[in-house]
Amino acid sequence: MRLAHARTADGDQPVVHLDDRWYDLRPLHAAVTPAVLAPDALAAIRAASLPAVEEPTEFAPPLAGIGKILCIGLNYTDHAEETGATPPAEPILFMKAPDTVNAPNDDVLIPRTSVKTDYEVELAIVIGSTARYLASPDEALAHVAGYAISNDVSERTFQIERGGQWDKGKNCETFNPFGPWITTSDDIADPQDLGLKLWVNGDLRQNGNTRNQIFGVAHVVWYLSQFMTLYPGDVINTGTPAGVAMGRSDGQFLRDGDVVEVEITGLGRQRQTFRSA
Amino acid sequence: MRLAHARTADGDQPVVHLDDRWYDLRPLHAAVTPAVLAPDALAAIRAASLPAVEEPTEFAPPLAGIGKILCIGLNYTDHAEETGATPPAEPILFMKAPDTVNAPNDDVLIPRTSVKTDYEVELAIVIGSTARYLASPDEALAHVAGYAISNDVSERTFQIERGGQWDKGKNCETFNPFGPWITTSDDIADPQDLGLKLWVNGDLRQNGNTRNQIFGVAHVVWYLSQFMTLYPGDVINTGTPAGVAMGRSDGQFLRDGDVVEVEITGLGRQRQTFRSA
Repeated sequence: MRLAHARTADGDQPVVHLDDRWYDLRPLHAAVTPAVLAPDALAAIRAASLPAVEEPTEFAPPLAGIGKILCIGLNYTDHAEETGATPPAEPILFMKAPDTVNAPNDDVLIPRTSVKTDYEVELAIVIGSTARYLASPDEALAHVAGYAISNDVSERTFQIERGGQWDKGKNCETFNPFGPWITTSDDIADPQDLGLKLWVNGDLRQNGNTRNQIFGVAHVVWYLSQFMTLYPGDVINTGTPAGVAMGRSDGQFLRDGDVVEVEITGLGRQRQTFRSA
Repeated sequence: MRLAHARTADGDQPVVHLDDRWYDLRPLHAAVTPAVLAPDALAAIRAASLPAVEEPTEFAPPLAGIGKILCIGLNYTDHAEETGATPPAEPILFMKAPDTVNAPNDDVLIPRTSVKTDYEVELAIVIGSTARYLASPDEALAHVAGYAISNDVSERTFQIERGGQWDKGKNCETFNPFGPWITTSDDIADPQDLGLKLWVNGDLRQNGNTRNQIFGVAHVVWYLSQFMTLYPGDVINTGTPAGVAMGRSDGQFLRDGDVVEVEITGLGRQRQTFRSA
């Protein structure tokens, strides 16, 4: 099942994709919010009789009311290598504010003084039920409502060369294209076997697979729950594979007019034009 | 003027303090939300005739719907010294999730595996209008709706010894006691001349003044607006003066049953009991 917000002439509308068709979710919910992600609420959607709608042609971000966005750094062996970093012994955590979330195909703004705006295709976990001090990774996946694509856009000068802590280069406006939809976890057979691809102006720059994550989805959710409480509607960006501009010998950072396309198996595709802020 | 949420037998109620009296804000607003902080909305509150209420005896957090909490690290000369760090050349940024916000006098939970839970009295800036690429610090204070107390509770092992990036030790549940109220900026003659004090079990541990901030309020707001957009209801914790447990030779971190009291000139007082999670 996919949950999304379709952009229509009448505004954004919550929609759901089930059995190869799209349906209007408004008889049940005014929007896809954290409450919609609860196991019972998802079961009620599956059981409901909803009016069919045309396949959406454009999407807003698929979740309203995100509480926090947690991001795992250097979580693919190949990406850790390309940045010259030692693979971490435990997950590295940084954060993006929910106000960085952007529709999957909307323009992304390059900050005014930026010279190193970079891309990162990432598997995003969407939390469906509260997770707090989970006893083991075996308990983690029951708290995952679904998955989506995040482009964890990053300004490397701000992130690394401007006085410490990565958050400074991760929170520029529009820096988290998200969606087009959330695919519920029952439709993802194995979150550790998803292909991730990213193109810049048609050139394939990233081509990875979540099997190369240093810390997989279950480990990350369990791990984070030891430090903080995860609530429904929280999002975890799980890191990016090799191929970012920062790690390439031909490293070209993004410039006004560049087009970035992003794809993950089963989670759809994004397409953003980068524009000067 | 002070904005707050009073805890009453009938639930939390928005209240305002004007001319030495407390008034019920419900004829104008159901809660203190980011929209209430807009200059026009504040002017309308000042001009309104509202029913008087008893002085509240207990407070919930004074702002509902915080978008993001930005935190400035090592922002007092004396605190940078005590941690052994070089004073930063530009502001260090890390983040707390809005779900860490706690009522000013509610218990704070010490994480289960914590051995270094620490306190930090901080002046919190509350943004009232959108700030984006401000031309100079001179423009910054017009975007500040008011100020409040934050206790930027921190777990030092999680923050520093667990694989990088401070956010991991800053986002435990209940780690941002906030309030008791927001004092609007017209009632703060000079944000760079506010005394900050913090006691543990009656022992004065921090005793600073915002005049010793390395980067003052106007500079911080202007600076952050170059990297990200500040929206109404965003909160900026502006750093802590010397005296945290981490920096003291007699350094005693917080334990179950410890009582922390926090005070800033004109912004009221907090009192938290620390309890094992």
